[in-house]
Amino acid sequence: MSRTVTGTVHSAKRIVIDGMQFARWSRKVFEQMRDGGVCAVHVTVAYHENFRDTVDLLVDWNRRLRLHGDLIGFAGSGEEMDAVIDSGRTAILFGLQNPSSIEADIGLVEMLHRLGIRFMQLAYNNQSLLCTGWTERNDSGLTNMGREVVREMNRLGMIIDMSHAAERSILDAIEYSARPVVVSHANPYAWRNTHRNISDPVLDALAQSGGMLGLSLYPGHMIHGSHTTLDDFARMVAGLAERIGPARIGIGSDLCQEQPPSVLAWMREGRWKHVETDEDVTGGFPPQPDWFRSNLDFGQVRGGLERIGFDAAEIDGILGENWHRFLHDALSGHAPAPGTPAARDERNDGKPLFGGADGV
Amino acid sequence: MSRTVTGTVHSAKRIVIDGMQFARWSRKVFEQMRDGGVCAVHVTVAYHENFRDTVDLLVDWNRRLRLHGDLIGFAGSGEEMDAVIDSGRTAILFGLQNPSSIEADIGLVEMLHRLGIRFMQLAYNNQSLLCTGWTERNDSGLTNMGREVVREMNRLGMIIDMSHAAERSILDAIEYSARPVVVSHANPYAWRNTHRNISDPVLDALAQSGGMLGLSLYPGHMIHGSHTTLDDFARMVAGLAERIGPARIGIGSDLCQEQPPSVLAWMREGRWKHVETDEDVTGGFPPQPDWFRSNLDFGQVRGGLERIGFDAAEIDGILGENWHRFLHDALSGHAPAPGTPAARDERNDGKPLFGGADGV
Repeated sequence: MSRTVTGTVHSAKRIVIDGMQFARWSRKVFEQMRDGGVCAVHVTVAYHENFRDTVDLLVDWNRRLRLHGDLIGFAGSGEEMDAVIDSGRTAILFGLQNPSSIEADIGLVEMLHRLGIRFMQLAYNNQSLLCTGWTERNDSGLTNMGREVVREMNRLGMIIDMSHAAERSILDAIEYSARPVVVSHANPYAWRNTHRNISDPVLDALAQSGGMLGLSLYPGHMIHGSHTTLDDFARMVAGLAERIGPARIGIGSDLCQEQPPSVLAWMREGRWKHVETDEDVTGGFPPQPDWFRSNLDFGQVRGGLERIGFDAAEIDGILGENWHRFLHDALSGHAPAPGTPAARDERNDGKPLFGGADGV
Repeated sequence: MSRTVTGTVHSAKRIVIDGMQFARWSRKVFEQMRDGGVCAVHVTVAYHENFRDTVDLLVDWNRRLRLHGDLIGFAGSGEEMDAVIDSGRTAILFGLQNPSSIEADIGLVEMLHRLGIRFMQLAYNNQSLLCTGWTERNDSGLTNMGREVVREMNRLGMIIDMSHAAERSILDAIEYSARPVVVSHANPYAWRNTHRNISDPVLDALAQSGGMLGLSLYPGHMIHGSHTTLDDFARMVAGLAERIGPARIGIGSDLCQEQPPSVLAWMREGRWKHVETDEDVTGGFPPQPDWFRSNLDFGQVRGGLERIGFDAAEIDGILGENWHRFLHDALSGHAPAPGTPAARDERNDGKPLFGGADGV
């Protein structure tokens, strides 16, 4: 089908967007993005790093953007994304999988936005200062600081990503945020029963609020792991589209291409517990299913969705146009500025935090 | 009464210990400690600081210890505490009111212990990475990282301080910790109904586990604020001693002597939310009651406890000997070392955190 990218027709390019990848970045990977027709990718910059170490990782990204500027370009807004796409390159959007990068300082949200970050997860598996991750025993939802940070992300146009959070925390974020939130990489819990995936009530609330779910192609999130077939996947998507409609669905492949086991260990363990061994205890990343090994394989996913009965417009939506439309809106900055009464009082239910001076 | 300090009788010094102070430190304050007969004080080093900034605050303390070495001395163990006391000076024990200093790195617990830290609160008002603070709407108890850090503090002999935490979190810490925990500065909720204070179930669990409650003399934690009388206070202590016995009770005055409003703002707000004003919104610290204004006033507290009917041995216990005995035990290092099976498996209920490889 023919498609307008920016509002004026100047190409018939299909929009393919991946809602989350964390590959071992290389020219080879960026070439595969181009050759696979991938127009934009939300890339993970940091997992457990603090602010300073996150800046180092962004410096690394700036080097990649210089070295491979013929293949990729940074995008901090919908307009920048479209300009990169129009030039025949892949737009790169920066994200964090954990709020550790803002440490305990809400002022760092704006600083990271200026440095290019456009997605931030409010938790990664464990409890954060903002909300609860899915591996915790108890889920207390959005915290005091969590509510403040949601409001700040709303203001800046930084996308709230609830992947890896626990159920109540996700529902809290959907309810509290003035703008739609996303789960950039997960699948329905009904398809694969890990709580890393998303329950039906959360799917419904996410869709009703105008949010996005990026469907994961990571084996641990799929019904038969590495042996999940493309038909298995396509049938899940068909059922999901019946439940919430096709417009709130995208891809968030969670492609961790060519990453060594040490990266899996860092993701899981960070430095939050002692791991008293020199050996790899992760077993490394599981093999990808044969129908999705790299950015070259989005065409195969298209074929699977065609065979299950989606029409071309629906498939275009799921493979990229839904994300494209969402990103254009979500990345725009959003009044009110901090300090105005609306910024302070919006969604404030008036509960005083401190009764008198007892908080010492 | 006469008292042995270290096991051999060499002075008849009364042991007065304050379980928590955060004064604007000065030679005047240290002279008041000496003149008031205060033998040891747990001082707060940091509230919301990260590791690096906490090191700066410890450097400041090292300067104070040099400048005022005739009045105060560092204590990292029971033996060091006794040596400082025997020399006629006040022993200084370092503590943190928030685990922000360990950031997201369990290895920093041992590093801070080496730098002198001997108490750490697991939360300060808000949610931390370890547990929930008392101002949050929901209390999820000890987190995954919280359990790991409790075990590490047990190993090192760093005292777990649950002041400023929420109820379920305190109960979790008491249950999970292999060593007794403390609430260094709070009062019974039944006396003043702020959740900054401690409910009856928590008081009972704390006492039964061999922990300590340091009674607060901060107006916000007392029944009539700054107008609370010494008799009000003494009657509360008498009732508490009936409930949990006198041996688990000490003083944790929370004396914030001569601190400006900016310090109160830092305690409350840190940098976790935007405070869009240049003006002081705290109102500053409330005035202390006239019977406890400085370290010179422990004698007045003694008089109040005498008048309410405590005997001399009970008062000696509450004013210092209970803390003294507790600290001797709590500051000793504690096998097993990390990496031994006991260290990994102790109190581990076997719940796997990750089902397969889905935590990505």
